[in-house]
Amino acid sequence: MSKAAPDLQTVVTEIAEEMAQRPDRGEVATYIPELAGVDPNQFALVVVDADGNIAAGGDADVPFSIQSISKVFTLTLALGMVGDRLWKHVGREPSGNPFNSIVQLERERGVPRNPFINAGAIAVTDVILSGHQPREAIGEILRFMQFLSGDNSIVIDETVAASEKRTGFRNTALANYMKSFGVINNPVDFTLGVYFHHCAIAMSCRQLAMATRFLAYSGRNPSTGLSVVSSERARRINALMLMCGHYDGSGEFAYRVGLPGKSGVGGGIIAVAPGKASIAVWAPGLDHHGNSHLGRIALEELTRRLGWSIFGT
Amino acid sequence: MSKAAPDLQTVVTEIAEEMAQRPDRGEVATYIPELAGVDPNQFALVVVDADGNIAAGGDADVPFSIQSISKVFTLTLALGMVGDRLWKHVGREPSGNPFNSIVQLERERGVPRNPFINAGAIAVTDVILSGHQPREAIGEILRFMQFLSGDNSIVIDETVAASEKRTGFRNTALANYMKSFGVINNPVDFTLGVYFHHCAIAMSCRQLAMATRFLAYSGRNPSTGLSVVSSERARRINALMLMCGHYDGSGEFAYRVGLPGKSGVGGGIIAVAPGKASIAVWAPGLDHHGNSHLGRIALEELTRRLGWSIFGT
Amino acid sequence: MSKAAPDLQTVVTEIAEEMAQRPDRGEVATYIPELAGVDPNQFALVVVDADGNIAAGGDADVPFSIQSISKVFTLTLALGMVGDRLWKHVGREPSGNPFNSIVQLERERGVPRNPFINAGAIAVTDVILSGHQPREAIGEILRFMQFLSGDNSIVIDETVAASEKRTGFRNTALANYMKSFGVINNPVDFTLGVYFHHCAIAMSCRQLAMATRFLAYSGRNPSTGLSVVSSERARRINALMLMCGHYDGSGEFAYRVGLPGKSGVGGGIIAVAPGKASIAVWAPGLDHHGNSHLGRIALEELTRRLGWSIFGT
Amino acid sequence: MSKAAPDLQTVVTEIAEEMAQRPDRGEVATYIPELAGVDPNQFALVVVDADGNIAAGGDADVPFSIQSISKVFTLTLALGMVGDRLWKHVGREPSGNPFNSIVQLERERGVPRNPFINAGAIAVTDVILSGHQPREAIGEILRFMQFLSGDNSIVIDETVAASEKRTGFRNTALANYMKSFGVINNPVDFTLGVYFHHCAIAMSCRQLAMATRFLAYSGRNPSTGLSVVSSERARRINALMLMCGHYDGSGEFAYRVGLPGKSGVGGGIIAVAPGKASIAVWAPGLDHHGNSHLGRIALEELTRRLGWSIFGT
Repeated sequence: MSKAAPDLQTVVTEIAEEMAQRPDRGEVATYIPELAGVDPNQFALVVVDADGNIAAGGDADVPFSIQSISKVFTLTLALGMVGDRLWKHVGREPSGNPFNSIVQLERERGVPRNPFINAGAIAVTDVILSGHQPREAIGEILRFMQFLSGDNSIVIDETVAASEKRTGFRNTALANYMKSFGVINNPVDFTLGVYFHHCAIAMSCRQLAMATRFLAYSGRNPSTGLSVVSSERARRINALMLMCGHYDGSGEFAYRVGLPGKSGVGGGIIAVAPGKASIAVWAPGLDHHGNSHLGRIALEELTRRLGWSIFGT
Repeated sequence: MSKAAPDLQTVVTEIAEEMAQRPDRGEVATYIPELAGVDPNQFALVVVDADGNIAAGGDADVPFSIQSISKVFTLTLALGMVGDRLWKHVGREPSGNPFNSIVQLERERGVPRNPFINAGAIAVTDVILSGHQPREAIGEILRFMQFLSGDNSIVIDETVAASEKRTGFRNTALANYMKSFGVINNPVDFTLGVYFHHCAIAMSCRQLAMATRFLAYSGRNPSTGLSVVSSERARRINALMLMCGHYDGSGEFAYRVGLPGKSGVGGGIIAVAPGKASIAVWAPGLDHHGNSHLGRIALEELTRRLGWSIFGT
Repeated sequence: MSKAAPDLQTVVTEIAEEMAQRPDRGEVATYIPELAGVDPNQFALVVVDADGNIAAGGDADVPFSIQSISKVFTLTLALGMVGDRLWKHVGREPSGNPFNSIVQLERERGVPRNPFINAGAIAVTDVILSGHQPREAIGEILRFMQFLSGDNSIVIDETVAASEKRTGFRNTALANYMKSFGVINNPVDFTLGVYFHHCAIAMSCRQLAMATRFLAYSGRNPSTGLSVVSSERARRINALMLMCGHYDGSGEFAYRVGLPGKSGVGGGIIAVAPGKASIAVWAPGLDHHGNSHLGRIALEELTRRLGWSIFGT
Repeated sequence: MSKAAPDLQTVVTEIAEEMAQRPDRGEVATYIPELAGVDPNQFALVVVDADGNIAAGGDADVPFSIQSISKVFTLTLALGMVGDRLWKHVGREPSGNPFNSIVQLERERGVPRNPFINAGAIAVTDVILSGHQPREAIGEILRFMQFLSGDNSIVIDETVAASEKRTGFRNTALANYMKSFGVINNPVDFTLGVYFHHCAIAMSCRQLAMATRFLAYSGRNPSTGLSVVSSERARRINALMLMCGHYDGSGEFAYRVGLPGKSGVGGGIIAVAPGKASIAVWAPGLDHHGNSHLGRIALEELTRRLGWSIFGT
């Protein structure tokens, strides 16, 4: 960050205040009671820079359901386990369809387009599960999140996981459909059990921004120096987030925000300014693509004011 | 570029030599004789940095048919003419389908997903044409290319344009289909006439790399200081190139190369390393998505060796 | 018809009177002025039995635009010209899509599902045209209609044909799309010219019911004894009408009416009760599938009262 | 049947002998071991006329897995239970897609196109199940088959049912997908349990031809005089069979055979010549649409020789 740049905490505070006052808050997800009951007036924004400085605004320490944001971390785990063999189970192209579409699966013989649509994330979860008990796989994913954020207090919201399981007919359809093509190897109930649990991890923006750091710094945590993935893999995960991180709103996010990012239906978004910062934002209300309405707007403001777009200053 | 970086001309020369020797050259486009007859053993790579230094390798001054690369420049022109009203005619999302697919058009009432699939580029051309004669619009596009590259010798290959017109049944279908939804305003023949002509512009990699400079430098030509578009618009065009510039191979390009880019079926690709360089590469043989096979590989090598990926070092 | 059957003319008169009084008249097609201006209160029903008895009700001698009804006769002509080789150009399955859908064409490489969707009828027209001038082909189709109905006064409404040509962007899209796959052999403008003209033939219900007789009687006109097609071909054309004659409302028509039939957007429908009668009905208002609203209801009443369903008494 | 008609038993015997000798036997279904092990050289043809005369050829008393043929009878049962309210759960149009396609479901919010594709039959089964235990519903369906065929020895092949359950991932996907739209009301496992069981009913051609009689005679068994459904309902079920009874080979079946019919992946087909006969044929080898290869050819021969096509003589 050059000297002329505005002070990071000031920008974050300003944006958090602006967002708190906006009347347009989107629509909270309603498919499970646990999400439907979240107060849409909450907002949080946390930015962690290369030196480990943390700029936080709003409800930065309130945990929320990370939902699909978990897909970035399960992708990272699965790549660590099987490397590029993962791409036999899932593609790397934008789907051009909503997050839970099954149409593309029929045309492409059960192989999901990318790891961030539901079908793709289920296929990735199936790879992580291989040869383990669901309980072990869930534990591994949770410990990975705790390790990345440096915070062992992170837990899974079992009520959310149970609700997802009870109502997840569409995901059950996707998993069985892939299974019919041999893309899923474990029992469908096992794979979905793990999937529903990692989506039900509860984290705050502070924890998420910390957990995302390795993607901003060539695969390493710049404070500890510990390498999580190779620099090439970090770049590629970032590329996938940019292309596919917001379902059929990915183009809009790239166009307006200009950072790799991943949203969850709980209203969270993580984003990466390579070499500069890792970011987490939370506003529970969603737009019609299922992405956080104010979360996206806040990130657009942030990159605009700080000149952080990867597409130029 | 920091001092530790390898010398740009050295890298370019190395890559050009490596590409010249590779036996896998892809398949030259065959749908018109003018493209089918191009020698697949040609290769060119030109990089222009912020200071105007030009690193060139291979057949850097051989003109080729830029084809869909022209879509970046017609998009720029159309945005200059009508601003954000353009987005009533065309979307900004990846299509998830091949370049000439008509399926998405039926579902979305004739509005193409983005300006870089054929249907979208035809819709953009229609906007440029509005209120002009085809000849005038063609002239304007050509002059824009000459202006951007600082080279008045650039011409349209009329033989290519005539061949496209003679065999362009699928594009004629797309244009009529959009017209049936009111998305195309001019007579279809006029719009397609302009479209076929701007796709038939012949340029060398040197000319293309020069013409692309404004996208690398916040919308301005850093040598002349002349502003072509606002910095915000330059970023957004780059975002569109990254998301949609390589049809249903866009994810692969982002994943491997990590730069915004746009390919043409003539074997050319332009790419942008924001703040660092504008790039043009040419290798006539295509992969199965219709993108230059060795062009993509050369760019992957270039960004890898120079650390230019927008997704991190 | 057994002695217990109600008198045919009585049934026809009753139905015509009932239909005249119904307030639900559907929506007249509006895409060309000539159709939009038709009075929706008109209604006609004509039934010709095996002995040549004609039962007529309503506006039985008012000519209207037969539109897609012509597809039955061009199919008959094309089969006469090239026999089963026709099926290389067009399929024989229901499409499950609206009449002007282009989606299926993309998936099946330009070969339309059946001869009664627009794309299929254009492909059939292209076969008829082969080796002739458009004017000759149009003349041949018109003379065939005159021959079948025994009425040389039948003409083409050139105003309708010209309107169709002026506004037929979607059909132009379909034709060019098929041409891009090599399914259309003649110049697209020629084929479409013939297509628009045969759709613009104007006939009354009386003329249409007469022209349809050969399909009800094993391919022969029972009055003249002249054979138009073989009995097997007549059966097969009837089968195609039942499966595909009402676009994505074909199932509904079979379910409710139980006769092979073909509708046109001008509000006409022809139907065949094999061995018993040929039928034409006309009511200009359409349902949401583009089929005559009251025409279908009148046919449902007719078959119900006379026990003519091919699916049982 | 007029006196000039060939003797029914003679025709059946001839066709059975011809079919026995043909080398082209199609491919036996392989997705479960119980079907994969069936001898493809078997063949049976049974025709029952209005007077109850039975003409049988080949392996007429060998039971086989009726599979999707059961869908005709569950449709009949469900219509008897809820009448036209059934059509809120399932449509009446040909799908234009293979039997197990999920694409159409996404576009039409979980409502299957017709009762004879897998999704539609599962929705029908769900209606039958409503308010009952799976065991009761299975018993009711089985007793209905026994009643219709007048043969209490008919049983369910539990091994087949268990195999289907073990491997039915695609049907599980379809059911869960519909459940996600609220189209399925019972627990998915219950509905599928009933579905897999009625598909696993084992019957001979003799039993099937008897069970189908009511559809040929206005809803009544002509020997007992007992009415199963109203004449209108019988006609409508026949119409549905004609339109949708052979998946995306329905057009071909109507075109060649000209009778309403329903096939099963076990190689059986039932067909109806209204007022004349009910028919069952069995040849285990399938064509590429999943319909019995020789079964269809045998029926084509039968209707040709006897002049039974509903589309004319």
